[in-house]
Amino acid sequence: MKKKKIKIKEIAGGVTAPLGFLTSGVHCGLRRSKYDIALIYSKEKCLAVGGFTKNLLQAAPLIISRKHIKGPIKAVIVNSGNANAATGKKGLADARTMCRLTAQNLNIKTENVLVFSTGVIGKFMDMAKISKGIKMLIPVLNTSSEEAAEAILTTDRVKKQVVTEFKIKNKKVRIGGMAKGSGMIAPNMATMLAFICSDVNIKKSLLNKLFQHALERSFNLISIDGEMSTNDACVFMTNKKAGNDEINEKTADSIKIFYANLLYVMQKLARMIVSDGEGVTKLIEIKVINCKTKKKARAIASRIANSPLVKTAIYGGDANWGRVASSIGASGEKVNMEKCIIKFGNYLMYRNNAPVKFSEEKLAAYLKNKKIQILVDLQEGKEAISFFTGDLTEEYIRINAHYRS
Amino acid sequence: MKKKKIKIKEIAGGVTAPLGFLTSGVHCGLRRSKYDIALIYSKEKCLAVGGFTKNLLQAAPLIISRKHIKGPIKAVIVNSGNANAATGKKGLADARTMCRLTAQNLNIKTENVLVFSTGVIGKFMDMAKISKGIKMLIPVLNTSSEEAAEAILTTDRVKKQVVTEFKIKNKKVRIGGMAKGSGMIAPNMATMLAFICSDVNIKKSLLNKLFQHALERSFNLISIDGEMSTNDACVFMTNKKAGNDEINEKTADSIKIFYANLLYVMQKLARMIVSDGEGVTKLIEIKVINCKTKKKARAIASRIANSPLVKTAIYGGDANWGRVASSIGASGEKVNMEKCIIKFGNYLMYRNNAPVKFSEEKLAAYLKNKKIQILVDLQEGKEAISFFTGDLTEEYIRINAHYRS
Repeated sequence: MKKKKIKIKEIAGGVTAPLGFLTSGVHCGLRRSKYDIALIYSKEKCLAVGGFTKNLLQAAPLIISRKHIKGPIKAVIVNSGNANAATGKKGLADARTMCRLTAQNLNIKTENVLVFSTGVIGKFMDMAKISKGIKMLIPVLNTSSEEAAEAILTTDRVKKQVVTEFKIKNKKVRIGGMAKGSGMIAPNMATMLAFICSDVNIKKSLLNKLFQHALERSFNLISIDGEMSTNDACVFMTNKKAGNDEINEKTADSIKIFYANLLYVMQKLARMIVSDGEGVTKLIEIKVINCKTKKKARAIASRIANSPLVKTAIYGGDANWGRVASSIGASGEKVNMEKCIIKFGNYLMYRNNAPVKFSEEKLAAYLKNKKIQILVDLQEGKEAISFFTGDLTEEYIRINAHYRS
Repeated sequence: MKKKKIKIKEIAGGVTAPLGFLTSGVHCGLRRSKYDIALIYSKEKCLAVGGFTKNLLQAAPLIISRKHIKGPIKAVIVNSGNANAATGKKGLADARTMCRLTAQNLNIKTENVLVFSTGVIGKFMDMAKISKGIKMLIPVLNTSSEEAAEAILTTDRVKKQVVTEFKIKNKKVRIGGMAKGSGMIAPNMATMLAFICSDVNIKKSLLNKLFQHALERSFNLISIDGEMSTNDACVFMTNKKAGNDEINEKTADSIKIFYANLLYVMQKLARMIVSDGEGVTKLIEIKVINCKTKKKARAIASRIANSPLVKTAIYGGDANWGRVASSIGASGEKVNMEKCIIKFGNYLMYRNNAPVKFSEEKLAAYLKNKKIQILVDLQEGKEAISFFTGDLTEEYIRINAHYRS
């Protein structure tokens, strides 16, 4: 049987595109003038699943949200400007208070609320501002996702929203996501937040399995600067309002359609994060193919993606494939360099452990593109991986040299 | 018994300070106008030991030198401008030819010559220029180390030379070293070359043991950009001309004196490399103390040292200790953050998993220093490590964006 390619239909909007979701975003004073606090609300209970940072130092809101996500969720409160990380017991109490205040104002239970924060690490939250912000958010809840998508940003330059619509047995279903990224982006789940809302009816255990699978193939395959943050999280929540027959282990076709859409939304958000990474001018795809295992392909791709020398070379439009070869050698993985092939786009650079003559002009022209592919062919197996990163520029330094001030 | 601190006496000069060594450095055309090829020569046979990169992709000269170093050594030929790495069989033949040409001109054996190269990866050597260079080097061999110290540099701004003189039972002995560094510096042994010459009489197996020990505590405790090069090497060679009684396992006092001097020379060269790292404006010492094992202390220190966010914060004079805390959490090591203490210099920033109030003015003043210490106290054991790195600046990007051109 021929594998049928699933067509994706993207529509406008964000997390409020699925039925039954409202959001708002306002300025409460945590940041100088930009929106800095956002709310997502669903009148119907949502089942939710999530992926969280693997940094040992977990920010306070993550500790709270990991607990709450087990039960039904009705609201998500998110602030930018302060990460509420490395803030000890007071930070934990503050994160809990954020849930409680949101719950009180919405007349729901504290444990129905998830809380997330990004921004400076090691600073206590200004709870007076937070409290004021939460009160402001309630009356302005509406069906546009724009203010919320704006309020979750930090040094991001653009809002990141993706929505797809698809049918499960003639019922229209939607998956709408928004994300923030910018710096401190690396596996696993580093300073990024992504909120994905849906109205799909799906079995929780299956949803979690598909979600974790997609996470490994999207947000965990990107890196801006090799940093792993204390605050990353990606949450998927659905209120099941689409009314489709439940997707479960027995509905293979529906699973395929749903997963293709989920993966599309998550991968697109992930790449939007890279393209808008701090100081990034170019999206770089590191594609490692014909590798024995996915794990090994990922380790090699990740080493290349996190090499400042590779990233600065791409920034400078310099076809310095030697730095790619050196990164492969430094990855700690066993590689037969005699069989290894390196290409920039379609241009062969390295084969038989030796350089291949190339046209500097053609390469210079190729490296002017906004999207660059570095291909590593190990010729030893069948596994492949695409890892996304950005170039490293003076702007990254400027943004991060004076972040707190 | 009280441990007697060994006083180190530094004297002027470089690798020619020990008896019996000559060097030269000239321009042969591998680089635009700077000196690009150097020779070290000892009429007497030297016993030599070395440490080499752990990058899987070994540059051709390293493959040759690893073999030759087992026997006696009389000369070292070093070029900058081309790393002769990822150059396959032709590269290997070229490296061998460099030894042969040097040997022929000096009337010694090919296997008495070590060869090293640094510069662009993946480019074939221009052997006509190399051959011309070697011929030029012989007649200008002299007792000054300045030209050689100059010729081994790449993007380094300053020559790096250290010499100490000490007595082994009333015989004067000298250890003189020179190094190149700049970018691609990280454990283990990343694009750096260090040549240390001595006239000490010492047993080879003991020398190798002491040398490897010192290597772990010097060049393997520095990082500029987390890169590991294909070409790194550190070589120690001695012609025994000082005439001291052989240092061996039975001469405990002599071992102590020799090791203290060796470590001093190697650590000072290593720190000179960091201070002169690409774009570096500040030397940062990451000191991890009271840790259960040295390996763990090193892993944590290395993660902090390679964090672009920590490095840019120090560059910007920003007391952003939260990024240090996040790096500790991201190190993969098990750390009890409740017990962990973070200091910038003498200023306490983090304790009991919470921020400590500090004076922004005092910290800003401290961070204006050229040497910054970040201290991490784990309060769990007795091991400590000092890891050295530099800040990350726009200049690093500028240097590396157009390196080949």
